[in-house]
Amino acid sequence: MNTTRRQGQMKLGAFFHPTGHHVAAWLHPDAQIDAGTNFRHYARMTQAAERAKFDLIFLADSAATRAGNMKALRRWPQYMAYFEPTTLLSGLAALTENIGLVATATTSFNEPYNLARRYASLDHISGGRAGWNVVTSSNKAEPFNYGQEKLPAHSDRYGRAREFVEVVKGLWDSWEDDAFLRDREQALYFDPDKLHTLDHHGQYFDVRGPLNVARPPQGYPVLVQAGASDAGRDFAAEAAEIVFTAQTELAQAKAFHDDLKARMARFGRAPDQLKIMPGLNPIIGRTEEEAREKHAFLQSLIHPDVGRELLSPELGGVDLSEVPVDEVLPENLIDDSVDSSKSTFQRVADMARKEKLTVRQMYERYGGARGQRTVIGTPKQIADQMEEWFLAGAVDGFLIQPAVLPAGLDEFAQTVIPELQRRGLFRTEYEGRTLRENLGLHRPAGRYAQQG
Amino acid sequence: MNTTRRQGQMKLGAFFHPTGHHVAAWLHPDAQIDAGTNFRHYARMTQAAERAKFDLIFLADSAATRAGNMKALRRWPQYMAYFEPTTLLSGLAALTENIGLVATATTSFNEPYNLARRYASLDHISGGRAGWNVVTSSNKAEPFNYGQEKLPAHSDRYGRAREFVEVVKGLWDSWEDDAFLRDREQALYFDPDKLHTLDHHGQYFDVRGPLNVARPPQGYPVLVQAGASDAGRDFAAEAAEIVFTAQTELAQAKAFHDDLKARMARFGRAPDQLKIMPGLNPIIGRTEEEAREKHAFLQSLIHPDVGRELLSPELGGVDLSEVPVDEVLPENLIDDSVDSSKSTFQRVADMARKEKLTVRQMYERYGGARGQRTVIGTPKQIADQMEEWFLAGAVDGFLIQPAVLPAGLDEFAQTVIPELQRRGLFRTEYEGRTLRENLGLHRPAGRYAQQG
Repeated sequence: MNTTRRQGQMKLGAFFHPTGHHVAAWLHPDAQIDAGTNFRHYARMTQAAERAKFDLIFLADSAATRAGNMKALRRWPQYMAYFEPTTLLSGLAALTENIGLVATATTSFNEPYNLARRYASLDHISGGRAGWNVVTSSNKAEPFNYGQEKLPAHSDRYGRAREFVEVVKGLWDSWEDDAFLRDREQALYFDPDKLHTLDHHGQYFDVRGPLNVARPPQGYPVLVQAGASDAGRDFAAEAAEIVFTAQTELAQAKAFHDDLKARMARFGRAPDQLKIMPGLNPIIGRTEEEAREKHAFLQSLIHPDVGRELLSPELGGVDLSEVPVDEVLPENLIDDSVDSSKSTFQRVADMARKEKLTVRQMYERYGGARGQRTVIGTPKQIADQMEEWFLAGAVDGFLIQPAVLPAGLDEFAQTVIPELQRRGLFRTEYEGRTLRENLGLHRPAGRYAQQG
Repeated sequence: MNTTRRQGQMKLGAFFHPTGHHVAAWLHPDAQIDAGTNFRHYARMTQAAERAKFDLIFLADSAATRAGNMKALRRWPQYMAYFEPTTLLSGLAALTENIGLVATATTSFNEPYNLARRYASLDHISGGRAGWNVVTSSNKAEPFNYGQEKLPAHSDRYGRAREFVEVVKGLWDSWEDDAFLRDREQALYFDPDKLHTLDHHGQYFDVRGPLNVARPPQGYPVLVQAGASDAGRDFAAEAAEIVFTAQTELAQAKAFHDDLKARMARFGRAPDQLKIMPGLNPIIGRTEEEAREKHAFLQSLIHPDVGRELLSPELGGVDLSEVPVDEVLPENLIDDSVDSSKSTFQRVADMARKEKLTVRQMYERYGGARGQRTVIGTPKQIADQMEEWFLAGAVDGFLIQPAVLPAGLDEFAQTVIPELQRRGLFRTEYEGRTLRENLGLHRPAGRYAQQG
């Protein structure tokens, strides 16, 4: 494996779960308890992330409340009620100048024309700082909100997603960058030759266009993807400019990185035009012991109802509500046929089968970060780990997922980021004004632009 | 006709066309020429409107570029490329504290679940200042952007709109106002008994819910409507809390007002729960003569290509591009069978048939304000006209449509509003924090709330 020493600096994103990424975050006294309806909470966090020179903030999304056992959900409220991301990021754009704004939206239950408009509009509002995390819906509760009984098959979801992205890009190209003359003397506002009708007719969509929003400042908002399946990787290699991924081991992260960058060549893309940023959940202490204590306190906040509920979907939705939490999970509750595309399934199953952990031990290990990489230690120790992965060429950066918000973001910004900056691994000033400029991504030319 | 002297104060909205409401606005040196992509332009205007104590700002919308003759459209760029309203208003919400934010969105090409989320989110972001102008699409270019060949019939559009609004209200009621306990001691974030699944099954939609956004601060964002047809009036009487309308004569405005308020009784609604706000396009001068000169200058900016194009749709889309502008319109180009639901058709047709105006005279008269009421004069004269209509009980307020933006808004705010305030006809401070509070509208109880 090629492990040439990396040049340049890492990219950092801040992932804003409403009260924090730990499953029990809202129970922690340092969490903003009403985060799901508190705009000022998001404003303060975004401004803090911008002061720390993060490349971007990132918001997840779903088109339904979470389905599950209400006995558990009432104690585990994340993504039950929260802001719609494109509106929230538009509000945050008005209060910031440099930080990127990445919102998730599903291709399964949106119209390309509507979505193309909103992201183009966000890119204009923010002066070129928008990103779109392209997802296909996997929440089984979503189709019922759109007159459908069930999710399409996995392959169909990606087929639709690929065509959806193509249509949206086509719509973003409707107006060439120099279409607007704004010439009062000749009474000519735009050049009709630089306005284009897409006339897309495909398997999933028929969309004429043109879009009624000018071409985004970035050409296209930055395209983000997070799927880890084979179809997801191909889609990322073809279309994504950032990939968020869950990686817990360096060797696997490096293999994922190298595989994805190799796939890009098949689509004629240069490896540096995709930034791979695994999630990283930092638990920071002045000493390692303090960090471990902080983590143990968080783990102790997980209610058994929640612990069982959060293991259940990773095991294919099996009902664990009557399982004793201080015993090992019975073998018959682990069904390997469930969903082999989910890399977390095997990890969770192995805890019971190979390590013989009790259910409580399982959910405490898996539960806090849900299959993401938790790094517990001093700012220096955390920076060491980040440096190691980055210099090994396993990542282009990290998506920071603080356990408790806003406290965990402030801690990271005040302790780990200065350490990374001292080592020359992270910027001290933004390189540009747009998200593309800060990430080092090309601005795509419009498909109709004359070669000059 | 009952013309009891009105109590209370009038309501005022500011309608932000990108460069202004006059068809040639962008050619005026005081217009912000890049308004369609300039967020700061909207920010400055919204802050100015808030300082002037306007109840609300209002944004129109369409789900396509305008269809028409490109020879004319290149000289008449309004609504060809501009911000998507829900994202733009979310950005503006972050920069303001009191002013209402009303965005148009069509029921024809949206999903109720997606739209309910965005307006609820905007209501949370703004602390209860959102409004939704409910429209059905009449732009023939829109269906092609959504895989459809043509618009549904007028009655079908309203059927869908009524059901759409019912679904959206039902989704906004998903979480009761006091559903969120946020009780760390008992580890209870919400009360499952106060979370409701809509399970709507109707003619147009099947939507399960619940919504994944908390109940909006206003209960429901304020519902706005602008249809003038019989079906539109019934819909407004049933569901609308603000009606925007084009009225040019006091007697007709009074008749429209009384008809609409009378229809409300059929739906068990009190007349004061609907605010009728006709459009008003002010042209302000220090003297009446100066105002007339300003208007004449604006009219002179209308290019003949644009003049012909803007008459054409009001006459059912007839091609006028070869018609000489200094002659009377030939009778055979006026087809009365076109669209009797449009009150503007008759006005335009009469200009040619009864008044024998030339095409240039027609488009100059009709064109600047497009069937809306233009009031030309000193601040005192404009306030006189507003006072007369308000005291006659013909209106609850006005939607101010400045000819040129931002200049026309600033002029109105600095000259007419102080005159209205001196007369006690308009507020000097906001009464409340939410749009409902400022408009004097009840906050609707959730449908599941216990009667206490």
